[in-house]
Amino acid sequence: MFSLDIQQIILRLEQLSQIGRDSNGGTTRLSYSAEYARAMELIGQYFRQAGMTVQIDAIGNIIGTYSGRNEKLPAVWSGSHLDTVPNGGKYDGALGIICAIECINSWHKAGWRPERTVRIIATIEEEGNQFGMCLGTRTIAGILNNSDPQQISNSEGISLAEKMQDISLDSRKIKQAECDPDQIHCFLELHIEQGEELDLAGMPCGIVTDIVGIHRQWLTIDGKPNHAGTTRMDRRKDALVAASHLTLEIYRNALNANGRYVATVGAMRISPGVVNIVPGQVVMPLEIRYIADQDFESAHNFFTATAENISRNYHVEISIEPISHTDPVQLNKELITVLEQAAQHRKIPYKNLPSWAGHDAQIMASIVPTAMIFVPSVQGISHSPLEFSRQQDIFICTELLLETLTRLAGN
Amino acid sequence: MFSLDIQQIILRLEQLSQIGRDSNGGTTRLSYSAEYARAMELIGQYFRQAGMTVQIDAIGNIIGTYSGRNEKLPAVWSGSHLDTVPNGGKYDGALGIICAIECINSWHKAGWRPERTVRIIATIEEEGNQFGMCLGTRTIAGILNNSDPQQISNSEGISLAEKMQDISLDSRKIKQAECDPDQIHCFLELHIEQGEELDLAGMPCGIVTDIVGIHRQWLTIDGKPNHAGTTRMDRRKDALVAASHLTLEIYRNALNANGRYVATVGAMRISPGVVNIVPGQVVMPLEIRYIADQDFESAHNFFTATAENISRNYHVEISIEPISHTDPVQLNKELITVLEQAAQHRKIPYKNLPSWAGHDAQIMASIVPTAMIFVPSVQGISHSPLEFSRQQDIFICTELLLETLTRLAGN
Repeated sequence: MFSLDIQQIILRLEQLSQIGRDSNGGTTRLSYSAEYARAMELIGQYFRQAGMTVQIDAIGNIIGTYSGRNEKLPAVWSGSHLDTVPNGGKYDGALGIICAIECINSWHKAGWRPERTVRIIATIEEEGNQFGMCLGTRTIAGILNNSDPQQISNSEGISLAEKMQDISLDSRKIKQAECDPDQIHCFLELHIEQGEELDLAGMPCGIVTDIVGIHRQWLTIDGKPNHAGTTRMDRRKDALVAASHLTLEIYRNALNANGRYVATVGAMRISPGVVNIVPGQVVMPLEIRYIADQDFESAHNFFTATAENISRNYHVEISIEPISHTDPVQLNKELITVLEQAAQHRKIPYKNLPSWAGHDAQIMASIVPTAMIFVPSVQGISHSPLEFSRQQDIFICTELLLETLTRLAGN
Repeated sequence: MFSLDIQQIILRLEQLSQIGRDSNGGTTRLSYSAEYARAMELIGQYFRQAGMTVQIDAIGNIIGTYSGRNEKLPAVWSGSHLDTVPNGGKYDGALGIICAIECINSWHKAGWRPERTVRIIATIEEEGNQFGMCLGTRTIAGILNNSDPQQISNSEGISLAEKMQDISLDSRKIKQAECDPDQIHCFLELHIEQGEELDLAGMPCGIVTDIVGIHRQWLTIDGKPNHAGTTRMDRRKDALVAASHLTLEIYRNALNANGRYVATVGAMRISPGVVNIVPGQVVMPLEIRYIADQDFESAHNFFTATAENISRNYHVEISIEPISHTDPVQLNKELITVLEQAAQHRKIPYKNLPSWAGHDAQIMASIVPTAMIFVPSVQGISHSPLEFSRQQDIFICTELLLETLTRLAGN
C-alpha cells in the first residue's frame, strides 16, 4: 500500500493560496501574472520533490513527468488548473493539482514505478478571465478558437502575446504545445463539485458522468417608450413588464424540470431606463445549461412558445440572437467503470453525477478518454473566499485518485 | 365678437419650434441657453404686437401685461412654459403661451380693454431638465425647494447662478420674483394633454379637474449571487426573478385598477449583472401616480403585501426607500364652472379629465385659484418630434380660452 500524507495536501493548499492572497481573504492568481509565475515555481518544486521532471509547454501549462517502466506506452495524465477567478477560493483547480502530486509522491516514497509514464499537468487560463475558457487545454487539443495571440486581448487591452512574454514565453511557438492524442492514454481530473449535490446527499465523493452543455443567447424586447403618467396601463407596450414575465416563466419552467436543466437571466439592459418613462427596450442574456439534448430541446421549445405568447399579449417584438453554444460531453464509460471498481475496492461511497460547470476535462474529452472525480463543496459555495471542502472528503477522493491512477498506469 | 387668427397661431408655433431645432426634427430649448434667450426675445415681440408691455422677472419668466380698466383689481394670469425637453415637440408648453397671446391680440385688434389687467406668462424650467420641475412658478409661489442658486447644479455641474448670469439675471435677486397672491385673481393654463384620453374619446377639448399625485420609491431586492450552472433552481435566491415577479404583479394590479392609478418600474440596476451568475441584487425605482388618496392607499397596500409574499417565496430581502412624494391637486371648482359655462355658451364639446402629468398649474394652484384647458394630443404622443395636435382642436380650445379670459377679466 502507498501512503497519502493528507497534512501535506492541506499545507500545500494553504501555501499556494497565499500566492495572490487579496485583502478580502480570497486569492487572485490570474494567468501570466507575477503571482502566477511564482505559483508555477512552487508547483515545479512539488513536482521535483515527488521525483518528477518538470517542463513548461508553449502556452504556459506546467507538466511534471514520472517516467514509467515502459516509456513507449501512451502516458496517463492527471491534473487541473492553476489560475483562479478574481477573489477566488483555495480549492478550485489547485486541489486537483496538489492531490495528483501527492499520489505520485506516495509512489515515489515507496520507490515504486508504474508501467506507463504519468504526467501531472497544472493548466493555465481555465477560468478564461482574460483570454477565453480552457485556453491551456484548448491549445493542447489544437482547438484554439482564435489562433493569433497578437489579436486576443484582455479587458485592459493587453494581448495574449504580451502577457506570455511576461513569463518568458514566445507566442509564435504556441503550436508546439499541441499534443499527439496517441501519446496520451487517458486524462483524469479531480476537482471540487462547486455545486451542493454531494453535500446535500452526504456523499464524500462523486464520479462525474457528463459535462454540461451551455447555450447562450441575447433576447431583445422592443416595446414603446412613453410618458409614465399620461400613458394608460392598457395602452402601454412596456418592454420591461414583458421581459419580467418572460424571465419569470423561464424560471418556473426550469424549476419544474427538477434538475434536468437550469436557466438563468443574469442581466438586463433597459432603455431609456429612467423613473418616469415606460421602458421601450430590454436586452438580456439567457443561459440554458443541460446534460441531455432532449431536455435542451424541450426547454428551448417552451421558451420559444412563451416568447411568442408574451410578444402577442404585451404588443412587443422579441428577437433572439445566439451568443454561443457548447454541446454537452459524455465522459468515458470505460474510465468511469475503472473509477467505480476502484471505489468499490477501497470501500469508498460515491455518487454518479453530471458537472453543471465547464472544466478542462471537457476539452481533453474531445481528444482522449477522460473522466473526473468530484470532491464535495460545502454548501456548494465556489468562486468565493468561503469556498470549502472537508479534509476527510479530500482524503477519500485522493485515495480514489491514487487507486485509479495505479490501476490505469499499470502494476 | 373678437376674432382669432388660427393661421397666426400655427405660424408662430412653427417659428418658435425653429429656435433650437435639432437634427432629429425635434426642438431642444433648455432654460437659460442661447436658444432660450432668442425664444424670449421672440415672445417679447409677440407680446408687444398684441399691445402688451414686457417684463422679465428675477428667475427668468417673461411676462406680458395687458392693462385693464381698473388696475387696482388683482390680475388674471394665463400662460405656460417656454422650455422644452431635449428633442421635444412643438406644442408642449409653447401652445399655451401662443394661444393666450392670440386671445389678447383679438382684444387688441378690436381696441377692447377688460376691467382687470391680464398677464400672459412664459415660464422657465417647467420641465426641470436642469434644476428641478416648475422652477419658474415655484419661485413665483415662494416654494423653491433648494433656495441657493449657487448650490443647485445641472448634470454638467454648472450652477443655476451661472446659467442665470448667461441671460443677464442676477441670482442674488431671485426672491424678487415671488408674487403676492392677493395681486393675482386666478391662473388659467392651456396645455396639450400628452395622453390620449381626448383623442380616443374623439373630444376636441378637455377641462382638467385634478393634477396627479406622484409617489416614487427605490426598491432593493437582495438575494444571493451564485454560479448559474452548479446552483440548482430550487436552491437559488435569484434577485432578478423576484424583481421580475414583483414588476409583473405591480403592472397587473395597476391594469386592473382601470385608470384609477398608474404604476411604472422604469429601470433596474442588476448586480453582478453577467450572463453566468445568478443575480444577487436588483435596485429599481417604482413610480405610482394617482388622483384620489384612497387609490394610492390601496395600490400601496397591495404593493406592500405582494412584496412580502415575494420576499418569502423567493427567499430574498426587499427594502423600500422613499425618493419623493407630491400630493395630487384639485383644481378650482369655481373656475372649472366658469370654463364649463363658457364652453356651453360657445357650444364647445368638452370632457372633464384629470392630468396624469405635472404642470405649472399645480404649483400656481397652491397660491391662487387655478384651472387648465387640455388640447388633444394625437395618439397621446409627447416629448417627441412626433407630438401633434390638430389645427381645429387648437382653434376650439383657444376659443374656450378667449371666452373664459373675457369672462374672468370682466366686460
